[in-house]
Amino acid sequence: MVRSVMSTEQMLPFAELLGIKILSKAPDRVEAELFVREDLCTRPAVLHGGAVMAFADTVGAIATVENLPAGAWTTTIESKTNFFAAIAAGETARAECMPLHRGRTTMVWQTRIMRGDGRLAAVVIQTQMVTTPKDGSA
Amino acid sequence: MVRSVMSTEQMLPFAELLGIKILSKAPDRVEAELFVREDLCTRPAVLHGGAVMAFADTVGAIATVENLPAGAWTTTIESKTNFFAAIAAGETARAECMPLHRGRTTMVWQTRIMRGDGRLAAVVIQTQMVTTPKDGSA
Amino acid sequence: MVRSVMSTEQMLPFAELLGIKILSKAPDRVEAELFVREDLCTRPAVLHGGAVMAFADTVGAIATVENLPAGAWTTTIESKTNFFAAIAAGETARAECMPLHRGRTTMVWQTRIMRGDGRLAAVVIQTQMVTTPKDGSA
Amino acid sequence: MVRSVMSTEQMLPFAELLGIKILSKAPDRVEAELFVREDLCTRPAVLHGGAVMAFADTVGAIATVENLPAGAWTTTIESKTNFFAAIAAGETARAECMPLHRGRTTMVWQTRIMRGDGRLAAVVIQTQMVTTPKDGSA
Repeated sequence: MVRSVMSTEQMLPFAELLGIKILSKAPDRVEAELFVREDLCTRPAVLHGGAVMAFADTVGAIATVENLPAGAWTTTIESKTNFFAAIAAGETARAECMPLHRGRTTMVWQTRIMRGDGRLAAVVIQTQMVTTPKDGSA
Repeated sequence: MVRSVMSTEQMLPFAELLGIKILSKAPDRVEAELFVREDLCTRPAVLHGGAVMAFADTVGAIATVENLPAGAWTTTIESKTNFFAAIAAGETARAECMPLHRGRTTMVWQTRIMRGDGRLAAVVIQTQMVTTPKDGSA
Repeated sequence: MVRSVMSTEQMLPFAELLGIKILSKAPDRVEAELFVREDLCTRPAVLHGGAVMAFADTVGAIATVENLPAGAWTTTIESKTNFFAAIAAGETARAECMPLHRGRTTMVWQTRIMRGDGRLAAVVIQTQMVTTPKDGSA
Repeated sequence: MVRSVMSTEQMLPFAELLGIKILSKAPDRVEAELFVREDLCTRPAVLHGGAVMAFADTVGAIATVENLPAGAWTTTIESKTNFFAAIAAGETARAECMPLHRGRTTMVWQTRIMRGDGRLAAVVIQTQMVTTPKDGSA
C-alpha cells in the first residue's frame, strides 16, 4: 500500500500481473482498462470482486501520484466498494477515477468501473494518505 | 462476484492465481494464508492493497458458502477495508474471518488480515447477498 | 432503520427533531436542506458528523420510498461517509441524492452534502434493502 | 466534525440533544448508552439509523480524545456502518468502542451497538485524523 512516486514507465508488479492498462492520466482524471482473463475470475466466469477492487485501488493511487508534491508519497488508508453488476470473462472492464477531495494530507478518489456495454459494475471510494518528507508515518 | 456453490476441491481461478491457501473452514470461522510473492506487490515491495482486499473477499465468500442452504448462491454486494500496516514481500499474510451477521438474505463477515509477526495489517467487512432458487437477482 | 411507506405528509420523528426540509423529490433525485442549529453541532460549533450522516440517511430512505413497488418497505443495511469540510453553525447544509443502482432487492444511493458556499462537505453512499410482502426479513 | 479537546465535564451539544451518556472511558475502551426516545425514531418506532451513526461517532471521538497528545485535536474523516437489527423505542442502546489502530496521524475505532437484549444491532468503523499544532489542516 505504501507507494513511491511512480514514473509513467514504472508499473507496479501486481498491476502488471492483472494486466491493467492506463489509457490516460491527468491530475483530475485517470482512465484505465482491464481485459477479463479467465484467471481473474470467480465461478461462474465473471471478474472476481477482489480483482475489481485491485483495479480501482491501482487507478486511485496513480491519480494521487499525479497530484503529489515533490518528494511526497502515498498510501491507501481505506477503500469502500459497492458492486452492482458482473463483468464476464472475455469482456474489457473500464475504470474512470475522479477526485472528491484533494487536500494536503489526504486525497479521496471515486472510481467507476464499467462493463463493455457501459453499464456501471462497481463504484469505489478510497482515501489516500499523503506523506511529505518532514512527516513521519501514519 | 457471483459465486456458485464451491466444493472443497474447487478453488476459484483468481484465488489460485494469488496463491490463497485455506487452512480451515467452518460455518463460524475460516482461516487462510497468502505468501507475499513479488508479483503481488506494489513498490516498495509490500503486498498490494488490492491483493489484501482480494484475499479477504475470497475468504468471506468461502465463509458464506459454508452457511448456504442447498441450492442457494452468494454475491459480494459491498466491501470496506481499513489498512493499518504493510506486509513485506517474502512474508506470509494470514486471514481470520468471522461472522457479524448471518441472516436469510444477507451475511456480513469481518476478516482480520495479519502479518507474519501477528500485527494487524487490515480489517475488511463485507456483505454477501444470499440468493435462493425462488428469488430473482439483486 | 426499518421504514414503512411514508406519504409526503408524514415526516419521521428524528428528521423532524433535526429540522430536515425536503425541497424536491422524484424517483431519480431528492434534494433537501438542513439549517445548522447550535444544538446539532460539536465543538467548535460545526455540524456534528453524526448529524451529517443522519441527514443523508433520511434523504436516501426517502429516495428509496419514491421507487418502491406497492406494499414494499425498505431498511438501510449499510452506509459509508467521507467527510471533507466542516459546516458552521448558522449555515444551511444542502443534500442532493441520486441513484447508483435501483434493483429489485437493493437500491444504492449517493448523497452529496454541500455547504452554503457550494463546497462539498461530505459524500455518503448507502445500501437500502427492499422487502416485498412475500419475502421475510433480512 | 472538528473537535477540540473535551474535558469530562463538557458534552457536545448534539450528544446532549440525543441524550448520550458516557458510562466509562479509558484509552482502549469507551462505553456509553442511549435511551431510545420516540423523537430519535423512524417509523415504525425504532432508533433511526442516523441516530445510531451519531451515537457511534460521538463515542469514537471521545475515545480518540482519550489518546490525544497535549494540544492535538481530532476530526472524523470517514465512517462506515453495517446495520443488523432494529432497536425499539423505549429500549436502551449500548455502545462499546475499541481501537483497531492508534497511530500518530490516524486512529481507527470499531464500535458495537447493542440492543437491550444484548443482540448486536450495528457495527461502526471510523477513522479519526489527529492534527497536532505544527501541522495544518487535512
